[in-house]
Amino acid sequence: MKSASLAAAYELLTEAGFSGVSFDEVSRRSGVAKTTIYRYWPTRSALLFDAVMQFAPRLPTPSTGNLEADLTTLTLALAQRLQTGRWSSALPSIIDAAERDEEVADLQSRTHAGMISGFTTIAARAQERGELDASFDVAELTANIAGPLFYRRWFARQDIDEAFVRRVVERALHTP
Amino acid sequence: MKSASLAAAYELLTEAGFSGVSFDEVSRRSGVAKTTIYRYWPTRSALLFDAVMQFAPRLPTPSTGNLEADLTTLTLALAQRLQTGRWSSALPSIIDAAERDEEVADLQSRTHAGMISGFTTIAARAQERGELDASFDVAELTANIAGPLFYRRWFARQDIDEAFVRRVVERALHTP
Repeated sequence: MKSASLAAAYELLTEAGFSGVSFDEVSRRSGVAKTTIYRYWPTRSALLFDAVMQFAPRLPTPSTGNLEADLTTLTLALAQRLQTGRWSSALPSIIDAAERDEEVADLQSRTHAGMISGFTTIAARAQERGELDASFDVAELTANIAGPLFYRRWFARQDIDEAFVRRVVERALHTP
Repeated sequence: MKSASLAAAYELLTEAGFSGVSFDEVSRRSGVAKTTIYRYWPTRSALLFDAVMQFAPRLPTPSTGNLEADLTTLTLALAQRLQTGRWSSALPSIIDAAERDEEVADLQSRTHAGMISGFTTIAARAQERGELDASFDVAELTANIAGPLFYRRWFARQDIDEAFVRRVVERALHTP
């Protein structure tokens, strides 16, 4: 019953956005009683957090021993998810709701941390083996890689091709 | 009557997001008859386009003759608008609606082009005077500067300080 509820919640999110997910509709679609759903998840944000963590596309965390190669593999996978997934069409509805609701902002921050954890892991490994300076700002590296891709997907509405991804990663590793 | 309608539409957009703007509510707030508003703007997107173009914060287009200095001034102004304006809180609601509605996607593309036109102008001037290579991809430059800022504002929810802006601009001018 838990997984049927989560699947219905994720389906509704990708179809209709954040505002399309209600306990009534999740109950109707999943066939699980509303009281049961409430027992597992007291709030819509709690339900959506579990649904997103379970069903949102996962990114690989390659470990070849070469920082730029690993980041490129991860970023190419991100580019693919951004351009094909129903998830990428639903995400702005969470970003929007987060502007007006602290609980959604918290949900967004936690799911986002999960989504970008590969960047942190890959960079930390490179720092351990001395390939990347220990003082390199990994949060800034992530902003410099994910930022241009997100910008093209949602704001400029431009294609994200492989050559663009490779240049973005190479430039992000450059220290001004 | 036109300007009262536009002011009411922009006010509603920044308060309640895209879905909060209706002809009924614009009419109620502005005191302008709904039939009059419809005569000027046949659709909600047409009304919002004019409202955003008139009221959204404008960015400067400095022209000191130094590319990096001009880009930094423009980007610092963008960072300030992102972190203080009610506009930056409303923009995700347009991005979200654009995912499901072609007319809103067109509205979003046109207002976005207006917002980033300073990058294009500054880069074109630098190309004319030979400071920037004529083959330099200006759309990619914009993605590499606006992307990390947008990422911090809406996705990572981190501060955008002056040092970050300066590094982003410097890195974006670096050709891998």
